[in-house]
Amino acid sequence: MKVTVSRKAHFNAAHRLFRADWSAAKNEEVFGKCNNPEFHGHNYELIVSVRGEVDPVTGYVVDLKILKDLIKSEIEEPFDHKNLNTQVPEFKTLNPTAENIAVVIFNRLRPVIDQNLDLKITLFETPRNFVEYEG
Amino acid sequence: MKVTVSRKAHFNAAHRLFRADWSAAKNEEVFGKCNNPEFHGHNYELIVSVRGEVDPVTGYVVDLKILKDLIKSEIEEPFDHKNLNTQVPEFKTLNPTAENIAVVIFNRLRPVIDQNLDLKITLFETPRNFVEYEG
Amino acid sequence: MKVTVSRKAHFNAAHRLFRADWSAAKNEEVFGKCNNPEFHGHNYELIVSVRGEVDPVTGYVVDLKILKDLIKSEIEEPFDHKNLNTQVPEFKTLNPTAENIAVVIFNRLRPVIDQNLDLKITLFETPRNFVEYEG
Amino acid sequence: MKVTVSRKAHFNAAHRLFRADWSAAKNEEVFGKCNNPEFHGHNYELIVSVRGEVDPVTGYVVDLKILKDLIKSEIEEPFDHKNLNTQVPEFKTLNPTAENIAVVIFNRLRPVIDQNLDLKITLFETPRNFVEYEG
Amino acid sequence: MKVTVSRKAHFNAAHRLFRADWSAAKNEEVFGKCNNPEFHGHNYELIVSVRGEVDPVTGYVVDLKILKDLIKSEIEEPFDHKNLNTQVPEFKTLNPTAENIAVVIFNRLRPVIDQNLDLKITLFETPRNFVEYEG
Amino acid sequence: MKVTVSRKAHFNAAHRLFRADWSAAKNEEVFGKCNNPEFHGHNYELIVSVRGEVDPVTGYVVDLKILKDLIKSEIEEPFDHKNLNTQVPEFKTLNPTAENIAVVIFNRLRPVIDQNLDLKITLFETPRNFVEYEG
Repeated sequence: MKVTVSRKAHFNAAHRLFRADWSAAKNEEVFGKCNNPEFHGHNYELIVSVRGEVDPVTGYVVDLKILKDLIKSEIEEPFDHKNLNTQVPEFKTLNPTAENIAVVIFNRLRPVIDQNLDLKITLFETPRNFVEYEG
Repeated sequence: MKVTVSRKAHFNAAHRLFRADWSAAKNEEVFGKCNNPEFHGHNYELIVSVRGEVDPVTGYVVDLKILKDLIKSEIEEPFDHKNLNTQVPEFKTLNPTAENIAVVIFNRLRPVIDQNLDLKITLFETPRNFVEYEG
Repeated sequence: MKVTVSRKAHFNAAHRLFRADWSAAKNEEVFGKCNNPEFHGHNYELIVSVRGEVDPVTGYVVDLKILKDLIKSEIEEPFDHKNLNTQVPEFKTLNPTAENIAVVIFNRLRPVIDQNLDLKITLFETPRNFVEYEG
Repeated sequence: MKVTVSRKAHFNAAHRLFRADWSAAKNEEVFGKCNNPEFHGHNYELIVSVRGEVDPVTGYVVDLKILKDLIKSEIEEPFDHKNLNTQVPEFKTLNPTAENIAVVIFNRLRPVIDQNLDLKITLFETPRNFVEYEG
Repeated sequence: MKVTVSRKAHFNAAHRLFRADWSAAKNEEVFGKCNNPEFHGHNYELIVSVRGEVDPVTGYVVDLKILKDLIKSEIEEPFDHKNLNTQVPEFKTLNPTAENIAVVIFNRLRPVIDQNLDLKITLFETPRNFVEYEG
Repeated sequence: MKVTVSRKAHFNAAHRLFRADWSAAKNEEVFGKCNNPEFHGHNYELIVSVRGEVDPVTGYVVDLKILKDLIKSEIEEPFDHKNLNTQVPEFKTLNPTAENIAVVIFNRLRPVIDQNLDLKITLFETPRNFVEYEG
């Protein structure tokens, strides 16, 4: 009896899209206004979903208080009110597109979540754009 | 040509998380403030999704008026403005976690929905926590 | 140069509508299913709005971190995961309608917020019903 | 490393549900108030989701500016502020249920989106009813 | 002790903007795509707000069940799944802009709501456009 | 017969809170994580409301197409995907708090909107924090 349990969280961050190995003109051509060298930013809304068997004793797939604390320590604290490009190590060499941010969040959470649980990341970059990654 | 059709509904209910066969201290340790013996409550927002072939004559997978009425009679009327622990029979011996509530809703709707249709329950316990169950 | 600044918060609670000095029949007649003696509950979504001059030095009407902490200590901690009727003192003798809850929240926050600031409470009892109170 | 990328869009349109080969009485019986011969209408909210490999060079599955422009030219311009029954060719012989509208949107977008990408359409007919189609 | 109490409702309708005493060209020039002679439509989301003294006996400004029923009989039933221009009498000679629809709703509700209560109508024509009218 | 008409818009931007005439320590003490020298960012959601007489000829307070275009040229284009501190002139000497951003938006729109219309700005910095300014 498998159930998916999801928890919403959020962080506000600056970023820009660019590749250091490309010219300014090439970055501008490919990434447009997202390439602004002075940065722009978003309220990222994050949904962390875990799927697994319901524990017949507690009725929980996972204790949401524990999941909430993990999201806080692993994602919200290192990402919130930060510049993703300059202050989150993974993005020093990786373009912080919504796709790549979702993958980085997945990779940070995967090791600290029970391996019997499937993990899925949904990340809203804006209320109109979002991405999903399941590993 | 399979399409998934979803209908939103809602009910407001009181509940507490606990096991009658555990001590108060053990319940408190595991369920924290959700174990308040005086109960707390939620506006549960429910999404019932059915998936099946589009009827080439009507263009419907299911008549949403019929689905809406089924959700009303099978779920909203017995759950709305109720105490789940004391007034919904399944939870007299089952902890009313979001996971278990979703399973109970699925089990109540499954027999009254065409067996050719897949059924999925999404249940928001709060705007920030939700669960999904597909049987 | 007056600006209104608003902060959202939330608490989940059980309640019932009734008057101890009325018969069960009278309570049932007036309050209908909201009078369920076993309680029901809601995810109350709260908006606290303060209006005042923008401080020309900081650009703040109020430091939202301070407002957030006040809402947490004065409202969220005493109300969240509680039974309003039995565990929040004001409602031992006051019917916990949305109207009265908003007034109680106002009365709890008014003394701890700068008297130069106007205060307004918006309280969603459900996503479809809400009340506003300005003192 | 596959990621799903989604973009929201919207269009406002009139429609009615009916079959030209049925009597008025039969249409009324099956489609009820949705069969109003004078039409009614909706704000359709559309989510277009594409799933594929993240390009290791750009960090994109798809350039959302390009996807946004495709949705605009293929769906928003021909559907927005239109009468679906009389002004969108597919519905001259097809009942414009939410299910059929989602299929038509899929069929219009599928040829113009990279065949290496999976496509999924989610269409909200109202904030309470929605459908999903993946081909 | 005055509190404002609000209730949300909704109706789906077709409409077009035009004046019968203008040429097609003039209508097109002023109302653009909203003038489509084949109609378009919206999911109108309505908020009805009443403001008055909290009854010290019940704790209510108004019984929301009564308000909900009034909105249903006076607005939802005559407007839902209708063509506003051709099936709602006021709009046979009045352009059904969001502004005018809000005024018409106010004028229909004002006589049936206690004259000691202030009334305010908020009408969302789309999730992005809305109007407010207080008489 | 005065009606308020509102239009939603949005822009994504980077910012930091600080005063150039304060030490880093003082900025850190007052503005906390909002003072991050590497910037952070938000999806600002903007509501522009205008209040005035309904034109008896058109049924409009204002043509929303014109209002939408004004918001685009005066606010969205100069603010979207920008660094407010370094790329929007007003904030070179003004701390870009939500309060000050709302005032700047008001000051940019006031001259281009009919002086017979009242203007109000509502600005969501996050889904949980917002400000309102009416001049």
